[in-house]
Amino acid sequence: MIVRPRPGLMDVAFALRGSVLPRIKGRLALITLLSVAAVMTARLHPGIFSQISAIPFTLMGIALSVFMSFRNNACYDRWWEGRKLWGSLIIACRSLARRTTILEMADRRLVLTGLCGFTAGLAARLRGADERAAIARHAGDGPWLGAVNPADALLQHLGRHCLLLMQDGRIGAIHHSLLEEQLHLLAQVQAGCERIQLTPLPFSYSLLLHRTATIFCLTLPFALAGALGWWTLLPAVLVSYTFFGLDALGDQLEDPFGLEPNDLPIDAMTRTVEREMLSALGETILPPPIEAKANILT
Amino acid sequence: MIVRPRPGLMDVAFALRGSVLPRIKGRLALITLLSVAAVMTARLHPGIFSQISAIPFTLMGIALSVFMSFRNNACYDRWWEGRKLWGSLIIACRSLARRTTILEMADRRLVLTGLCGFTAGLAARLRGADERAAIARHAGDGPWLGAVNPADALLQHLGRHCLLLMQDGRIGAIHHSLLEEQLHLLAQVQAGCERIQLTPLPFSYSLLLHRTATIFCLTLPFALAGALGWWTLLPAVLVSYTFFGLDALGDQLEDPFGLEPNDLPIDAMTRTVEREMLSALGETILPPPIEAKANILT
Amino acid sequence: MIVRPRPGLMDVAFALRGSVLPRIKGRLALITLLSVAAVMTARLHPGIFSQISAIPFTLMGIALSVFMSFRNNACYDRWWEGRKLWGSLIIACRSLARRTTILEMADRRLVLTGLCGFTAGLAARLRGADERAAIARHAGDGPWLGAVNPADALLQHLGRHCLLLMQDGRIGAIHHSLLEEQLHLLAQVQAGCERIQLTPLPFSYSLLLHRTATIFCLTLPFALAGALGWWTLLPAVLVSYTFFGLDALGDQLEDPFGLEPNDLPIDAMTRTVEREMLSALGETILPPPIEAKANILT
Amino acid sequence: MIVRPRPGLMDVAFALRGSVLPRIKGRLALITLLSVAAVMTARLHPGIFSQISAIPFTLMGIALSVFMSFRNNACYDRWWEGRKLWGSLIIACRSLARRTTILEMADRRLVLTGLCGFTAGLAARLRGADERAAIARHAGDGPWLGAVNPADALLQHLGRHCLLLMQDGRIGAIHHSLLEEQLHLLAQVQAGCERIQLTPLPFSYSLLLHRTATIFCLTLPFALAGALGWWTLLPAVLVSYTFFGLDALGDQLEDPFGLEPNDLPIDAMTRTVEREMLSALGETILPPPIEAKANILT
Amino acid sequence: MIVRPRPGLMDVAFALRGSVLPRIKGRLALITLLSVAAVMTARLHPGIFSQISAIPFTLMGIALSVFMSFRNNACYDRWWEGRKLWGSLIIACRSLARRTTILEMADRRLVLTGLCGFTAGLAARLRGADERAAIARHAGDGPWLGAVNPADALLQHLGRHCLLLMQDGRIGAIHHSLLEEQLHLLAQVQAGCERIQLTPLPFSYSLLLHRTATIFCLTLPFALAGALGWWTLLPAVLVSYTFFGLDALGDQLEDPFGLEPNDLPIDAMTRTVEREMLSALGETILPPPIEAKANILT
Repeated sequence: MIVRPRPGLMDVAFALRGSVLPRIKGRLALITLLSVAAVMTARLHPGIFSQISAIPFTLMGIALSVFMSFRNNACYDRWWEGRKLWGSLIIACRSLARRTTILEMADRRLVLTGLCGFTAGLAARLRGADERAAIARHAGDGPWLGAVNPADALLQHLGRHCLLLMQDGRIGAIHHSLLEEQLHLLAQVQAGCERIQLTPLPFSYSLLLHRTATIFCLTLPFALAGALGWWTLLPAVLVSYTFFGLDALGDQLEDPFGLEPNDLPIDAMTRTVEREMLSALGETILPPPIEAKANILT
Repeated sequence: MIVRPRPGLMDVAFALRGSVLPRIKGRLALITLLSVAAVMTARLHPGIFSQISAIPFTLMGIALSVFMSFRNNACYDRWWEGRKLWGSLIIACRSLARRTTILEMADRRLVLTGLCGFTAGLAARLRGADERAAIARHAGDGPWLGAVNPADALLQHLGRHCLLLMQDGRIGAIHHSLLEEQLHLLAQVQAGCERIQLTPLPFSYSLLLHRTATIFCLTLPFALAGALGWWTLLPAVLVSYTFFGLDALGDQLEDPFGLEPNDLPIDAMTRTVEREMLSALGETILPPPIEAKANILT
Repeated sequence: MIVRPRPGLMDVAFALRGSVLPRIKGRLALITLLSVAAVMTARLHPGIFSQISAIPFTLMGIALSVFMSFRNNACYDRWWEGRKLWGSLIIACRSLARRTTILEMADRRLVLTGLCGFTAGLAARLRGADERAAIARHAGDGPWLGAVNPADALLQHLGRHCLLLMQDGRIGAIHHSLLEEQLHLLAQVQAGCERIQLTPLPFSYSLLLHRTATIFCLTLPFALAGALGWWTLLPAVLVSYTFFGLDALGDQLEDPFGLEPNDLPIDAMTRTVEREMLSALGETILPPPIEAKANILT
Repeated sequence: MIVRPRPGLMDVAFALRGSVLPRIKGRLALITLLSVAAVMTARLHPGIFSQISAIPFTLMGIALSVFMSFRNNACYDRWWEGRKLWGSLIIACRSLARRTTILEMADRRLVLTGLCGFTAGLAARLRGADERAAIARHAGDGPWLGAVNPADALLQHLGRHCLLLMQDGRIGAIHHSLLEEQLHLLAQVQAGCERIQLTPLPFSYSLLLHRTATIFCLTLPFALAGALGWWTLLPAVLVSYTFFGLDALGDQLEDPFGLEPNDLPIDAMTRTVEREMLSALGETILPPPIEAKANILT
Repeated sequence: MIVRPRPGLMDVAFALRGSVLPRIKGRLALITLLSVAAVMTARLHPGIFSQISAIPFTLMGIALSVFMSFRNNACYDRWWEGRKLWGSLIIACRSLARRTTILEMADRRLVLTGLCGFTAGLAARLRGADERAAIARHAGDGPWLGAVNPADALLQHLGRHCLLLMQDGRIGAIHHSLLEEQLHLLAQVQAGCERIQLTPLPFSYSLLLHRTATIFCLTLPFALAGALGWWTLLPAVLVSYTFFGLDALGDQLEDPFGLEPNDLPIDAMTRTVEREMLSALGETILPPPIEAKANILT
């Protein structure tokens, strides 16, 4: 996630960090070259583009805006839903910490370090890191490391422990259901994150819009060169910047759990959970919160 | 579901797999022919189309974009809701696995293989395969095979078993309610999937948009031929590609449980459930996860 | 609900059934006549319409598209919410069937036939049929027939019966809460359906859009006749078809429980509930599912 | 709420009741006068407006449509959420009636008349009437009349009574939780209604759109007068009707609990609750349902 | 929050308070100057801008409207979700007050003053004030003041107290679960508010739109000056006012918990909670409700 104050006038003019410019500069350069070529051709052979009018481009451009707006909306919703899921994860951990305050310390420690392990494991899973190592760092060794789905296996282990506490009469059945309810919430978070990660927007959709936007931007200079002369550069580059930029941003937001600049600060949230769980266990030496580096919070 | 990396420049130019092009190529060829005919007619009889201006087409085209965007939105929502429902199914199965950890093995096996049977049965039902055979493969023979709604009858059987466990005092009433809650979630998933499958978008809606888009694309070349000459081909084909393409995609997403390239990977998710349930039962020889074939995950 | 395969090219050209054409043919004929009159007037008195340009019509047309799209969205949401509510009804009935499997047969029969009665009563209420007769057909005579709100009174009767089962110690309090939870869901379904039926879109909204669309379509031919000649007919009729058609569709979807072609198949869903409840009671002679007649499923 | 059949052709032409016309007639008259003035000026001094072209107005008009559509959407959502909240209120009352069927009559009467009092108090609170009097009419005198928030204090009283029933062992703890759950739902309804009533759309938003729409409509005649002559009147008045009309409608829907024609029928719903609660208590002489007066249901 | 009656005609013309005008006056002045410069240059050197046509600007402007509408929507949703979360906070406090009516006074006082402390602490946290001081003012000293997350630590303390009440047999397990459920709701509110505050819209998004809007508005005068002469000022300034104004409003709504004029009245809602909790404890001398100052309710 990019952590910056609101862009001032200088940022608007010159900011590169946090901008999608670096990502689309190749395409923008191509459009600029094409525009120059189109204008020079139009100067040498006046009338060559005289038949292309801007009106069908208005129609296409507006249609394209409507459809790209749909894709952006969908990608943004995925990104925001990802954030909401991690918010639920934080809520569930805090509620488990609250609902275990009267357990014996060993049991409570098992649950809360288990939560740290689950969180770290989910983060690793979503970012393609070593899930088992991340879990083991907090929750130690156990059968979960050999399971098909280590993070979920850890949840099962915690659930089993809570069931045993109930069976032994150390917590009541209702109290147990309050704990289990939060484990269910964590299972929802995990499956929700997997859903967003593993099911991208339909590929054909992205391809269709990529294609249409690319052809549109590539041909726009020729439609404008005859009438606008060197002024062609302004709308051609500005329109390409907007369309390619939104397209690139949609790509980043589509999978919000990655490591690209606009992705969610999964690592920082994992650390938040760790700090709060350790603090609830009475520990005073806590790992420091993760700070943004060069305006990027990972 | 199409599993491919983000389209690069080459894909944008040439990719056929994952594109809707094959599906609409007939219509695109027709538009191309019409455009050629229109331009040649305009050359032979200049002025024949001089009265058709592009302005009413701008109006119609933008109106059409707005309404097609609505339909696309609705179809995409159905597709995404379908995915969410299958996510809930996975969550419910995992939570049932977690909440049955202290049951006796025979009871737990009955529940978890029942879940595999339910999942496979639902998948078969949604894809028009043999529901009863799919259930029997996992859950064996039983009264559910003769019921009106086999998948739901299997759920009833599981529910009855849980009630009996409670009646016999082998699980507490609260513990039973935690199991039953998840069965209710599964019933929600089934009814939600049936809703999406059996209630398509209002037919009149699709017909109205099909019609308007078709007439629009068929007449567009004539409106442009007089003024644009051979340049007519570009906007005529590009606009048709966008409109027909989005229309065809909407058709695919409307029923997300089918076997078309952009449909949901129901089979792969069914296998995931099977693997996780067997793993929870301690089995080590698991069926392999389903891999994408030729970029398509079914 | 219209049950048809996806429209092919022939359907697009000629289908009347399932189309809104019959409903708006009068208005379309009027627009056609007006267009002919406008073109002939323009031919006789060239210049009479020369001052009306198409540009303000582009502006109005696009604004109108945006606002009609809003209304369509809202109407579609009502239709889809209606379907979701009936989906919840099916879920609640199935869950009650599942949660009553260990009750004595007489009690279970009372509950499940009560559900058939509730469903039939709600369907009758929503379609303006005789609610009391529909309930009595399944649930027999009782105090509910004299109540202000018979369907809800039947639910109260079922709720009272469940409470008595609990009071007599024949089911536990938790088990009772599982039954009551589903009755609450049914009360939600009923009130949700009443909300959709009794609270249409604000009348002023529909009137404003009707008015603007009508005036727009009536004056469009005059704006185009001067410049386009006989070509006027194409955009004038096509635009009217789209706007009047979407308007008429919105009217149908606004109240999704009626008997118009695009309305929800309430009767068929009522029969589904009846069949599944009877099947759960072990009956083998079931009423047949309702089939579509002339492509319409009521 | 306006209760009328769907507008027929005559209504579209002449209906005033239920239309927003009366509300915006002043502004429409102003625009008409301005248009006449603009056209006459253009006739006397041809060329005076020749430089204003309609193209920037197309741009502004479409931008304005998009933003007004956003505001309308938001206002409609508030209106519809208000209706949903009152639907929840009805559901909660019915469920409480159902869940108290085995209580002693005095207790049940206390709860159900309390619900009538709560509903009437909330209605009075939302419509600026005397909340305390409305509550006292149904629930009699009590500490709630002196509280900061009388409707909520009445809920607290009901909640306390249910807790005492549980403490006295007259209902079980689970049964109590079923009652309390519905009281919580009522608290949600109250706070939701207060939220909609007390937090209008951001004022700056409404002001910005009011301003832009007003300036747009005031200057539109001058942009069109040069080219369109007397035809200017048609688009100028039609566009103003649409924009001012939607603006006025948005104002009405923003606070859906008032007494304007399109507001929700709070009084009628309050009476519905009263009738159903009294009917559940076995009373047979019920106040009559509230009927629409001059097509308006309050 | 700005508390004003609906803007009348005078407000539309002259209101500054509550308008975003003060915030964007610099940019508007710049556009005005540029427009004047452009018109004068065009007068001196006719033909210098003759090649820039307004048509590409129409295309860009409409595309920009669509994308800015998306951002506004997202920002408004954040603002409204913030309000909903505070509504949930009020609901949870009221429900806890209702569900503790039969506790001993000391316990009830501990819970209800704890809620005042939590609310004040959350408000301070969201507004960058001293969270610990705000909590201590209501809930006194305690371990929460030293915790990583003071507001949540206070919730944990309340949760622990409720658990102890249950352990001591002073409330039943079900009654305890009713209290804990509301504490969970409060944890949801806190995490939801933190989510909105700490995760702004993706920075690249805002930057891209800022940039495109700024370049668009800066170049618009040059595109219009050639054709429109002094009339250029009207569309150039009006369009800039709309785009810059919506942009500035989006910035305000994005973080709804601040102290800007359109932000939510957090302080007033905190006081409402305080007054209702104290009133529930039987206190009669209550702090007065917070009134709007100069039309602004903080």
